[in-house]
Amino acid sequence: MGMTMTQKILAAHAGLDKVEAGQLIEADLDLVLGNDITSPVAIKEMEKMKVNGVFDKDKIALVPDHFVPNKDIKSAEHCKCVREFAYRNDITNYFEVGEMGIEHALLPEKGLTVAGDVIIGADSHTCTYGALGAFSTGVGSTDMAAGMATGKAWFKVPSAIKFNVVGKMSKWVSGKDVILHIIGMIGVDGALYKSMEFTGEGIANLSMDDRFTIANMAIEAGGKNGIFPVDDLAITYIKEHSKKPYTVYEADEDAVYDEEYTIDLSALRPTIAFPHLPENTKTIDDIKEDIAIDQVVIGSCTNGRLDDLRIAAEVFEGRHVKKGMRCIIIPATQAIYMQAMEEGLLKTFIEAGAVVSTPTCGPCLGGYMGILAEGERCVSTTNRNFVGRMGHVKSEIYLASPAVAAASAIEGKISYPCRLQ
Amino acid sequence: MGMTMTQKILAAHAGLDKVEAGQLIEADLDLVLGNDITSPVAIKEMEKMKVNGVFDKDKIALVPDHFVPNKDIKSAEHCKCVREFAYRNDITNYFEVGEMGIEHALLPEKGLTVAGDVIIGADSHTCTYGALGAFSTGVGSTDMAAGMATGKAWFKVPSAIKFNVVGKMSKWVSGKDVILHIIGMIGVDGALYKSMEFTGEGIANLSMDDRFTIANMAIEAGGKNGIFPVDDLAITYIKEHSKKPYTVYEADEDAVYDEEYTIDLSALRPTIAFPHLPENTKTIDDIKEDIAIDQVVIGSCTNGRLDDLRIAAEVFEGRHVKKGMRCIIIPATQAIYMQAMEEGLLKTFIEAGAVVSTPTCGPCLGGYMGILAEGERCVSTTNRNFVGRMGHVKSEIYLASPAVAAASAIEGKISYPCRLQ
Repeated sequence: MGMTMTQKILAAHAGLDKVEAGQLIEADLDLVLGNDITSPVAIKEMEKMKVNGVFDKDKIALVPDHFVPNKDIKSAEHCKCVREFAYRNDITNYFEVGEMGIEHALLPEKGLTVAGDVIIGADSHTCTYGALGAFSTGVGSTDMAAGMATGKAWFKVPSAIKFNVVGKMSKWVSGKDVILHIIGMIGVDGALYKSMEFTGEGIANLSMDDRFTIANMAIEAGGKNGIFPVDDLAITYIKEHSKKPYTVYEADEDAVYDEEYTIDLSALRPTIAFPHLPENTKTIDDIKEDIAIDQVVIGSCTNGRLDDLRIAAEVFEGRHVKKGMRCIIIPATQAIYMQAMEEGLLKTFIEAGAVVSTPTCGPCLGGYMGILAEGERCVSTTNRNFVGRMGHVKSEIYLASPAVAAASAIEGKISYPCRLQ
Repeated sequence: MGMTMTQKILAAHAGLDKVEAGQLIEADLDLVLGNDITSPVAIKEMEKMKVNGVFDKDKIALVPDHFVPNKDIKSAEHCKCVREFAYRNDITNYFEVGEMGIEHALLPEKGLTVAGDVIIGADSHTCTYGALGAFSTGVGSTDMAAGMATGKAWFKVPSAIKFNVVGKMSKWVSGKDVILHIIGMIGVDGALYKSMEFTGEGIANLSMDDRFTIANMAIEAGGKNGIFPVDDLAITYIKEHSKKPYTVYEADEDAVYDEEYTIDLSALRPTIAFPHLPENTKTIDDIKEDIAIDQVVIGSCTNGRLDDLRIAAEVFEGRHVKKGMRCIIIPATQAIYMQAMEEGLLKTFIEAGAVVSTPTCGPCLGGYMGILAEGERCVSTTNRNFVGRMGHVKSEIYLASPAVAAASAIEGKISYPCRLQ
């Protein structure tokens, strides 16, 4: 019985020829990630463990991004704790305001995540780096502390679900629709503690940004990780961004999967997750009533990348946000912000009546930069629409792609570009 | 005995030929302003007074700018209250996210404040519009409520201090240095309930943005208002921005002033207000020790205008924010943001390692977007450096011009452009 792609990466990092689902292993870590919410907890945990120093100052990434620039005294103290730890331990990859961005957009851009890596991060959406053929997964702050101290982590080897991707998406359908479709199909616990392994000829039709979006939301189906094959596009991306050595792993031909699904990209339609779970999906065609909204957010580790902003700008070009709507655009990193400015995308957003924020997680997790009042509705390109996630417990979040979000901002109700005048 | 410029505006609005200092009058209002902190209080006050409707839907400006885009549920609820009031009363000048900016930069830009106006605003820095030859002053939310209901307000006619401005500022000295110098000279209560009337041939050497900055901080000397003569430059500005009729008032030749000062612009040096009062000023030459800083903020109703950003960009051009520093740039309005982008200023900021925020008051009043932790120091172009104003009670704020702030960001300590390599 062969191994899945994830299992082969884990086996190699555990120094084992073979692992199988359910086995407990200790694996070497290529990167340990924390942010301004989780790192302070991990740092205090290390102090309790009386650990001095870190296993490798080059293999830790500290990215204050959730409430940064500091939204209040508490977040300022958290950032100070992280900053001082970073300086004390000479952490190479500590990212200050002005250098930073949303962690899961920033690390691939900075070349810190490459194919074949094993990465843990004290943030649920650490699974993003599967887009590059890495095994990456979210952990708690205690695991982060242990990882920073020892460079190792325990894992139960996951079994896998195989998604055979075929076909090509039509205009205005993107990676977000792919993953929302899948979550709608298998549910928020459909891949619980399993690898979501994407494969098939349709992968070639997914941009890197599509893949990041899809891998990013594996956790929203309960997945331990999401992972893509390392094709020429991925290798080009890695070489453009990183000097780190990378290793390409492939699933064995006789690898066993718990389930297999075929995803026909050409059949997908713009898909929206209704409150209050990412699995509550409807296609745009299924929405018969007008759903009036108050706010649109385009950004986050899920959809704040350049492709996302380009799509949104294409929709906004020559159009205007509906009177009374708030539309908040959050480029995920400083580099994305800069490139979007150079390409005229930010100009399009401002002319359309949107505002452009500094890179931050901000409203996605109810931090700041667009929190909802009672009864308000937001169409958001973020990843979670749980009760109260973006503000008041009586507010509502509709998860969607940048194309749907932009069209909805223009119409003041859930819409998509083909419906615009 | 003649009247001051302020007294003549007030007399005209009270329907009186003559007023004198100390007299209680009721004046007609040309504009009543509120923001997201003060308007909800005023709106509730109107409800208590069982007032239905407003005196004139065109003469009220509601500008959510302090914690916007909403930083938390409470601020979201405040904004919702203002928004619903604005729609209910068909308020012409309600500014939504995407249309907005910091109130005192936005209203002149939108042409809502012109020479000869009497303006009250439930915000201390409402005195800004004196730059255009208007009488404008900050009031409490109850006065705002009464103003919105009746279009009138009671005033005690202020006496005045005359500032005779001569000469011309040297490079890297700007309006901020003028007003900090004055506050340092007369103290934070030096103009208590008095008009600060600026006059003299040196006025011609002050840009409109310099004048806005100077009038803006009149309140920091305790002034009831600050006011400038309406010269060609002011008229040009008014005509470019407004279709409102304006009236030019001039002080009588025999007007009486409590005090008179001569301000020689050519003698001014870059001036910094040390913690914890705006009157604790030192010139850059007086600062002998190195004062290491953690953060720089360039923005606010005081110094977030185009001239300010141009000066900062000139300093940042080809240079970089010191490693470890956070530098936050906050264009005061969407129009300023857009123009700064068109001119390449935002690019310069990002390349220098700064971040660019949506227009907001943000950190100035400890709202969000750069709050300080214990022991941190910030050089800020804002207007108040009171204990805890920008965060922790053990943090420190040094008030300065954009030129000093930018140079300090580059050096990581209080500096000014001539000291840079």
